[in-house]
Amino acid sequence: MDIYILYPVSGIKKHYRKLFAELLGTMLLVATVVGSGIMAQNLSDDVGVQLTMNMLATVFVLFLLISMLGPISGAHFNPAVSLVFLISKGISFGMFVFYVLAQLIGGFLGSVIANAMFDIPTEISSRVRIDAGAPLSEILATAGLILTILLLIKHNQNLVAAGVATWIGAAYTFTSSTSFANPAVTFGRVFSESFAGIEPVSAAVFVGLQIVGALVGFGIYKILEGKNG
Amino acid sequence: MDIYILYPVSGIKKHYRKLFAELLGTMLLVATVVGSGIMAQNLSDDVGVQLTMNMLATVFVLFLLISMLGPISGAHFNPAVSLVFLISKGISFGMFVFYVLAQLIGGFLGSVIANAMFDIPTEISSRVRIDAGAPLSEILATAGLILTILLLIKHNQNLVAAGVATWIGAAYTFTSSTSFANPAVTFGRVFSESFAGIEPVSAAVFVGLQIVGALVGFGIYKILEGKNG
Amino acid sequence: MDIYILYPVSGIKKHYRKLFAELLGTMLLVATVVGSGIMAQNLSDDVGVQLTMNMLATVFVLFLLISMLGPISGAHFNPAVSLVFLISKGISFGMFVFYVLAQLIGGFLGSVIANAMFDIPTEISSRVRIDAGAPLSEILATAGLILTILLLIKHNQNLVAAGVATWIGAAYTFTSSTSFANPAVTFGRVFSESFAGIEPVSAAVFVGLQIVGALVGFGIYKILEGKNG
Amino acid sequence: MDIYILYPVSGIKKHYRKLFAELLGTMLLVATVVGSGIMAQNLSDDVGVQLTMNMLATVFVLFLLISMLGPISGAHFNPAVSLVFLISKGISFGMFVFYVLAQLIGGFLGSVIANAMFDIPTEISSRVRIDAGAPLSEILATAGLILTILLLIKHNQNLVAAGVATWIGAAYTFTSSTSFANPAVTFGRVFSESFAGIEPVSAAVFVGLQIVGALVGFGIYKILEGKNG
Repeated sequence: MDIYILYPVSGIKKHYRKLFAELLGTMLLVATVVGSGIMAQNLSDDVGVQLTMNMLATVFVLFLLISMLGPISGAHFNPAVSLVFLISKGISFGMFVFYVLAQLIGGFLGSVIANAMFDIPTEISSRVRIDAGAPLSEILATAGLILTILLLIKHNQNLVAAGVATWIGAAYTFTSSTSFANPAVTFGRVFSESFAGIEPVSAAVFVGLQIVGALVGFGIYKILEGKNG
Repeated sequence: MDIYILYPVSGIKKHYRKLFAELLGTMLLVATVVGSGIMAQNLSDDVGVQLTMNMLATVFVLFLLISMLGPISGAHFNPAVSLVFLISKGISFGMFVFYVLAQLIGGFLGSVIANAMFDIPTEISSRVRIDAGAPLSEILATAGLILTILLLIKHNQNLVAAGVATWIGAAYTFTSSTSFANPAVTFGRVFSESFAGIEPVSAAVFVGLQIVGALVGFGIYKILEGKNG
Repeated sequence: MDIYILYPVSGIKKHYRKLFAELLGTMLLVATVVGSGIMAQNLSDDVGVQLTMNMLATVFVLFLLISMLGPISGAHFNPAVSLVFLISKGISFGMFVFYVLAQLIGGFLGSVIANAMFDIPTEISSRVRIDAGAPLSEILATAGLILTILLLIKHNQNLVAAGVATWIGAAYTFTSSTSFANPAVTFGRVFSESFAGIEPVSAAVFVGLQIVGALVGFGIYKILEGKNG
Repeated sequence: MDIYILYPVSGIKKHYRKLFAELLGTMLLVATVVGSGIMAQNLSDDVGVQLTMNMLATVFVLFLLISMLGPISGAHFNPAVSLVFLISKGISFGMFVFYVLAQLIGGFLGSVIANAMFDIPTEISSRVRIDAGAPLSEILATAGLILTILLLIKHNQNLVAAGVATWIGAAYTFTSSTSFANPAVTFGRVFSESFAGIEPVSAAVFVGLQIVGALVGFGIYKILEGKNG
């Protein structure tokens, strides 16, 4: 994908389209995750139904956002993904920093927008997410996401959007953490005291686990692809 | 898309296929939204399940209607979409007026058909939809819809049907208004005293918000695409 | 689609692949509709959840069966569809008769298989389905199905499987009859005293309505396509 | 598909990529099936909702895993599928043995991972699955799976991933056994005392039925395709 080529950062202006797309995409992703969580909690008492509503909304919006904004910015929306492209020399270090900043701002704004739509204050979540299964869940979810992206870019590029959406859709339900798998989304979800929220210490631990997961996923990709990777 | 080219209106007859497709598509869309809402309310007491049934039916029919009628009329089914094509010189003013009329008639007929299938009278809804979150919800839902359409037509045209369907599917759940995002559908939903209904004053306010949202979406598209937009 | 070309019937042997595919496809379709209905009723007390389970299974299997068997027989699985191809000279009268027989046998066997899997006897359903909304529901559902097939074959042939599946998925929820839209499936569903069953008189009325709906759908197609139809 | 060509086994090393992909894919498939079952049981009291959550996660992950790993190993993840490719001379006997070993190890590890994420011990399931409908269910589910794979490889190869996912999605709900249809997944599911578990004797019987089903599916394929099969 030519969008991942290495280029010198000649100031934010030259790349404003990419950065705006990253901010916008991450914002809409977090608005969807947080907003659909609030909606689900308002409408149903069955937590299985709540999680399914939350999951379907996320699957749909991920497919759309990657299809729509991928041609502009590569549709990372995720510092763990940008990190892997930095390591594999897909983007420069300067670009990586700008991408992550755009994603974090987008994640925060997404939470603010979701809270505003449902008329609840933007406040720090108190929901503790650290438990015995969280480390394995977040590492697996993020490793699988990186593997999905790298293998589909290589072998089936027109399926990247559907592949990322379906991986996250499955991981919502089969990992005990419900699969955050994204430091910018995790950061954004700190700012909503609702179904999708996460308190700051859990968030920090999750981000660490996601970085480990990204590296694990990259390592598995290298093993699978060998010299062709 | 050659279907959006500017042409003089030489009377309704020349364009009857397009107008009939717009009427038919909007009618089936509203029949689905209203009918599945009534069915859901009849069958389940869990409002989360109700909204999910309503959402899935809408996602499915949107994907189909755009795939099936897009080659004939462009598959707007939505005055806010037609407005954006008018502004971007995709259709003439005369055609815009005829399109909107066909959409409004279709929206009304869709509600009548849904009511008739479930044997309830066609009457004006009393359901108030205006609340603190409605302005942001409707502006966001409509802006996102316009952005989806314009970006996918430009970058990934074969995904327009899937993209519109998944955006509306996500927005059903993550916006507090459940995402009307369409003046003709809003108008049609006035005529059913059921799950999907909306009372006239709320409908008028929603339409105004949707027009603002369409302009916001068009503006964001212009910023994202710059001189290439 | 070359599979709809007119050819003389030189005995069943020459066409056994097509007829076997029609029997097999209709059998698996009815086994899915009836079996998932029984499963849903066994597992949930929420009728909305039951219908959603029934609907999702049908959407999935329709997409698959049309994708898998379409290249062999055209994947009608439905006498109303075969009737439209007869009228439009897509198949000969002799072939039409054999297709319908294969579909009816498949529909019956599908019900027998579903009943056997869930260890309930194959008996005539007592579920009355005629009500005020049934005529409009079945005519609309079948007309929409025919329109879906004819328009997608003409304009977007690789989407026929997805289009039929999504139309039926939507119609399951938005029509009051839950959209039978298929005389062979209706016939098959007579033979199960369960969620998806239908008693014989209702079935006969539904088949009549479906034939009307097929003709209405064909007429709308001709209006939409004009001389190009 | 060139990945099914016959080649001599020159030691595991040469084929480690294929075997690693088979192990990884089967592991993620079983982790999804078992993990989403535990999650569903934890969150909802409605067994219909539980099965739907379990089913959706499986559909999503199957589509992804086949799209992502298919170009490397053929994405069997299933000894019944490998058996059919052995019979049709798609793989050698030595390769078949290695594939099945990789799949069984993957199935076991998937269960271990799912149990670990949800902090429950890995122990032998006590859930009896043998009942009157199980034989027909497992034979039908596996025969349909084989038919799906062989017909789509022949006629619609780019739909294999979507086809397998939708077949299994439908079969989850319309067969009374919920459609195991895979000896390696069945083996893996022995090692979890949870929603998706199966006790050893039932598992052994299911595997036998699946082998019969695979042969039935292969036979039906041969009948359908005749000399072209």
